[in-house]
Amino acid sequence: MSYHIITISREFGSGGRFIGEKVANRLGFSYYDKEIIAKVAEQTGLAKDYIEKMGEYAPTKSLFSYLLAGRDNSGQSMEDYVLAAQRKIILTLADKEPCVIVGRCADYILRDREDCLNVFIYGNEKEKSERIQKLYEKSPEDAIKLMAETDKKRSLNYNYYTNRTWGDVKNYSLALNSSVLGYEKCIEIITGLINS
Amino acid sequence: MSYHIITISREFGSGGRFIGEKVANRLGFSYYDKEIIAKVAEQTGLAKDYIEKMGEYAPTKSLFSYLLAGRDNSGQSMEDYVLAAQRKIILTLADKEPCVIVGRCADYILRDREDCLNVFIYGNEKEKSERIQKLYEKSPEDAIKLMAETDKKRSLNYNYYTNRTWGDVKNYSLALNSSVLGYEKCIEIITGLINS
Repeated sequence: MSYHIITISREFGSGGRFIGEKVANRLGFSYYDKEIIAKVAEQTGLAKDYIEKMGEYAPTKSLFSYLLAGRDNSGQSMEDYVLAAQRKIILTLADKEPCVIVGRCADYILRDREDCLNVFIYGNEKEKSERIQKLYEKSPEDAIKLMAETDKKRSLNYNYYTNRTWGDVKNYSLALNSSVLGYEKCIEIITGLINS
Repeated sequence: MSYHIITISREFGSGGRFIGEKVANRLGFSYYDKEIIAKVAEQTGLAKDYIEKMGEYAPTKSLFSYLLAGRDNSGQSMEDYVLAAQRKIILTLADKEPCVIVGRCADYILRDREDCLNVFIYGNEKEKSERIQKLYEKSPEDAIKLMAETDKKRSLNYNYYTNRTWGDVKNYSLALNSSVLGYEKCIEIITGLINS
């Protein structure tokens, strides 16, 4: 199979973003992560910070409070508006050139494309917590809290918009435990699937 | 990391057993599947057919009816007895020589060994159903029914004896969708992790 797109879904602290960037570099693929936020901001006229939160973390509160949130005349909430713009940009980018896309429900948005390899990167609590402590200068307690909160938000967002379960192997072509295998092995496995 | 043991957990029809056998052949590892049943039968004096069902599929009915099943004076049910014998044999085999072990909660039984690579092989409904139709000469309807029933039993058995969730990535070093990647790629990825 010849893959033109790689989507990376990842647990917080698992190094999924790092792995995705390295894979893109080695394959000469475009790498889309923050670029998507910039493009959505440009298209919607909204602040980048707001887009970043909405794009992966909405609904930020409970589903109930989310349903009570403000909507415009068409019944569309601001979150729906941002997600619709993001979806359109991901579809356009995927059409343009071979690329790696990190997060943002890209595996679901591109589900009809057969040339899309969907990867889930996860890890063990100990290794993920250590990475978060180091990268974000957090105490062990704060790292564990941040990890749980971030993954909870990602999971809520994904489940709400896709009607699937975040982290369920069914959504992915493969799932790699970066704590057990190491980042380099994860990069090699993914690039090996594209180059063959 | 130098791995001496590979455990393969798999969805019915995903080709996990086939992949495990090929991996063992290429690596020169011992391959344990039916051999475990024979050894448990020898040790317990029970019939192989019975062992096969108990070893991967108990509790075969609901948890409630399982709890009501016959127990000896020590409070141990026949299923517990078979599982305890199976556990001991898996621990002994793993100590003996490099090997591939398919099913039978081996990933859980060997969880304290760091030289154990735990793989989950899964697949898409269409490809798994086609394989079952071909291998077991089943109609499409019967194949889908058999697939659901077998995985349900494996899942019940695993969850009951390990207190974990069967198919949850957390239990494995990696999970591969054999329908998307193909059997050969799955074999290459696993052997590649051992040979490096």
